[in-house]
Amino acid sequence: MQRKGRLGTMDPYEHAGAGDADDDAAAAGVKRGRFYESSRVEGFSDNVLAVAITLLVLDLTFRSSPGHVLADLLRQWPAYLAYLASFGLVGVIWVNHHQMFTRIAAVDTGLLWRNLALLLTVSVLPFPTAVLSNAFQHGNRFDERTASVFYALAVTLDSAAWLALYHYLFMNERLLTRRVSPAFFAGERRRALLGIASYLLAILIALWDPAVSLVILCALPVFYGVTSEGWRGLRRRRKPPPSS
Amino acid sequence: MQRKGRLGTMDPYEHAGAGDADDDAAAAGVKRGRFYESSRVEGFSDNVLAVAITLLVLDLTFRSSPGHVLADLLRQWPAYLAYLASFGLVGVIWVNHHQMFTRIAAVDTGLLWRNLALLLTVSVLPFPTAVLSNAFQHGNRFDERTASVFYALAVTLDSAAWLALYHYLFMNERLLTRRVSPAFFAGERRRALLGIASYLLAILIALWDPAVSLVILCALPVFYGVTSEGWRGLRRRRKPPPSS
Amino acid sequence: MQRKGRLGTMDPYEHAGAGDADDDAAAAGVKRGRFYESSRVEGFSDNVLAVAITLLVLDLTFRSSPGHVLADLLRQWPAYLAYLASFGLVGVIWVNHHQMFTRIAAVDTGLLWRNLALLLTVSVLPFPTAVLSNAFQHGNRFDERTASVFYALAVTLDSAAWLALYHYLFMNERLLTRRVSPAFFAGERRRALLGIASYLLAILIALWDPAVSLVILCALPVFYGVTSEGWRGLRRRRKPPPSS
Amino acid sequence: MQRKGRLGTMDPYEHAGAGDADDDAAAAGVKRGRFYESSRVEGFSDNVLAVAITLLVLDLTFRSSPGHVLADLLRQWPAYLAYLASFGLVGVIWVNHHQMFTRIAAVDTGLLWRNLALLLTVSVLPFPTAVLSNAFQHGNRFDERTASVFYALAVTLDSAAWLALYHYLFMNERLLTRRVSPAFFAGERRRALLGIASYLLAILIALWDPAVSLVILCALPVFYGVTSEGWRGLRRRRKPPPSS
Repeated sequence: MQRKGRLGTMDPYEHAGAGDADDDAAAAGVKRGRFYESSRVEGFSDNVLAVAITLLVLDLTFRSSPGHVLADLLRQWPAYLAYLASFGLVGVIWVNHHQMFTRIAAVDTGLLWRNLALLLTVSVLPFPTAVLSNAFQHGNRFDERTASVFYALAVTLDSAAWLALYHYLFMNERLLTRRVSPAFFAGERRRALLGIASYLLAILIALWDPAVSLVILCALPVFYGVTSEGWRGLRRRRKPPPSS
Repeated sequence: MQRKGRLGTMDPYEHAGAGDADDDAAAAGVKRGRFYESSRVEGFSDNVLAVAITLLVLDLTFRSSPGHVLADLLRQWPAYLAYLASFGLVGVIWVNHHQMFTRIAAVDTGLLWRNLALLLTVSVLPFPTAVLSNAFQHGNRFDERTASVFYALAVTLDSAAWLALYHYLFMNERLLTRRVSPAFFAGERRRALLGIASYLLAILIALWDPAVSLVILCALPVFYGVTSEGWRGLRRRRKPPPSS
Repeated sequence: MQRKGRLGTMDPYEHAGAGDADDDAAAAGVKRGRFYESSRVEGFSDNVLAVAITLLVLDLTFRSSPGHVLADLLRQWPAYLAYLASFGLVGVIWVNHHQMFTRIAAVDTGLLWRNLALLLTVSVLPFPTAVLSNAFQHGNRFDERTASVFYALAVTLDSAAWLALYHYLFMNERLLTRRVSPAFFAGERRRALLGIASYLLAILIALWDPAVSLVILCALPVFYGVTSEGWRGLRRRRKPPPSS
Repeated sequence: MQRKGRLGTMDPYEHAGAGDADDDAAAAGVKRGRFYESSRVEGFSDNVLAVAITLLVLDLTFRSSPGHVLADLLRQWPAYLAYLASFGLVGVIWVNHHQMFTRIAAVDTGLLWRNLALLLTVSVLPFPTAVLSNAFQHGNRFDERTASVFYALAVTLDSAAWLALYHYLFMNERLLTRRVSPAFFAGERRRALLGIASYLLAILIALWDPAVSLVILCALPVFYGVTSEGWRGLRRRRKPPPSS
């Protein structure tokens, strides 16, 4: 508590995590310039995710000829589905990103670049979303297949970035806050692998029937949003916080 | 005061609300990882709302043939009206969002998803705005009717997200700061219901005369901005802060 | 110092201004919910200004036919000038906005709406910028005149929003931090009036020669950036901070 | 520690840097209004960089005719390369910007305008990126050459802005935190000069073979990301923090 108060006075940001950034080694590392402060990295990531989730609306363009507004609005349903799928995905990513950062006390270069890779896979999302909605509106079946595979590949890369992040945190205990054991990130790593597997499956299904894969691509963020909670609530044993 | 000082040292963000996040149960929940910190959720929401309100300008596109800049600028008046209506709407939503979060001490999963739903209805707003201004510029009367109904529906969904949020807060007192009684959110719930009713009425009017409904859609944010203040100032009795 | 420490513990944001938010009345008002915290309003405004300044680049579109990239790049010079003018303008607005908020201890409803009006005039800026660069690239002299007047009018509205803000702060001393006298905002009000006068003059010049007015519109942000500093450094007597 | 605690109570933001903003002169300057708080300038810069890095995706537009989605996706490879190059560049800029600001205690007007110039060169980046990908997709060899030179020039301006910033910090020790000697920024200045030289070399190579220069333009951010770490880790002797 004493140590905590001291740190809190020096750098209130350090405590923006769930009140547990009390890792002396990490704090000392931040002060010596070897680590980055996790709060700044998180703030920048938050900004990027917020812009990315809001930019998705630019995929919903509207051009219509007189008298056809209603028909054109209805015809665009694949664009709405793709928008919802990507919005949900970025939303779930944001939740997971915060969950991760509440367990991080300091950020080193390796984590920084892996985090940038994750932001890359999220920032780029409006593009495969546009390809997807475009193909389902104006393309033939081959186009739909291509677009679904392309979208699923983009999201697979996103899961791969998560895998890299979780693996790195599993290997670098010194970056974690005290109350978190590396075993936690071994579990998260499995969750990322499951994500990769699901999206590879969605790719296979897209080759068979793109419409079915579109439904799956929309459902997966919902599934991950719900089960990640359940997973966390049901199976994980969390180390109790040291004193609090 | 003692308790407050301790919390403030551990997590200065917790106090970003009106200095009243002194709910021990909520703070303990945040530390055990069961709740999210309200400040982070609020920060992300703020970012999304700021991007959404600024992106609206992209609906004001400009293409003109030589010698027609003045005429084309004047002809676009529905786009300006639609822009103002949506800008006012997001502005009012931001004010209400902050009002809400000054009364929230912790965020759980249910609140998190309801908040994301609200952000979805706000982020998507540039799209119905574009449809509206497009229909009034280039469409016939049937298009104007369609677009007005579509815009009003989008805003109705927004009011529905508010209703869900307020209802959830009414049912989950443990998420509120101490000085707020759940009764406050029962009142807010009524305000959201009134919003839904107004926008459904605007839909009916749009079926009759879309131009009139356009005026109403522009006026409602102003009305809500002004009366929410009046409502709050005149009718509500606020529980005085416990000690301060 | 004692009072300060107490406040700092309760709400570290309150002190984000230049360490002078030690107005007891204002702090009490924030706690009773009658005022908004200035830091939140400032944070949202910052976000909006950052998005607006970055969105300006979308006015720089590029389409070219094979073999004409160099010619098309050179031909677009009015777009670059318009971009620079607006970027500089938003940059200067951001600086002034911060200057203003370091002197504000609390935000009430009147200030909130006036601030939203300012954000509106900034957010909308990419549109007159696009009109301006469009007219100077593809329009005739009449178009250039129209576009220059339109752009200058938009910026005049911006100065009017500043005038409203400064006037409101002059009239509402209770919102100010202790070390600031309302007289300061009387001076700022004069600066806003000078801004309005300059832009009205630019409108007159645009009616005579739009190219000259374009140069003036580019120069004015530079002028205001430089002289506001000089003005502040040379003429104003600042009340010394109470203790520090 | 005593001094630190006092400052921390007055303005927690001041300490958002690596816990070393303990420069009494700078803090006093902030309070007297002669300096800007570095945290606010950094926050705004962070916002702008986050929006700029995310807006880059708007350069990836997609239009396709039925049956050609796959072919059109593959044909767009220069757009992907350009996107990656610019994303990497902004990412590296963000890292360097933070590195710089952890060593800054206060911001004066000169630094403020130089920082705005840097933000300008970053915000504008989506435009040369679009020109680059456009020329490599639809242009002839002359177009590719023009676009490569244009892109490299834009990045050279960015390096020039860094040079101006580092030089200014070298000349104004009073703005630095205590633990940093101006010699550090002499080293950074050399790094910026090396950047300018690299990009001028890329311009020369672009005149000879634009495809080679495209590869170099993509590789340089990676190179700077990696070596800036190595440079820092290997060669620089850092003054140990005074007490901590």
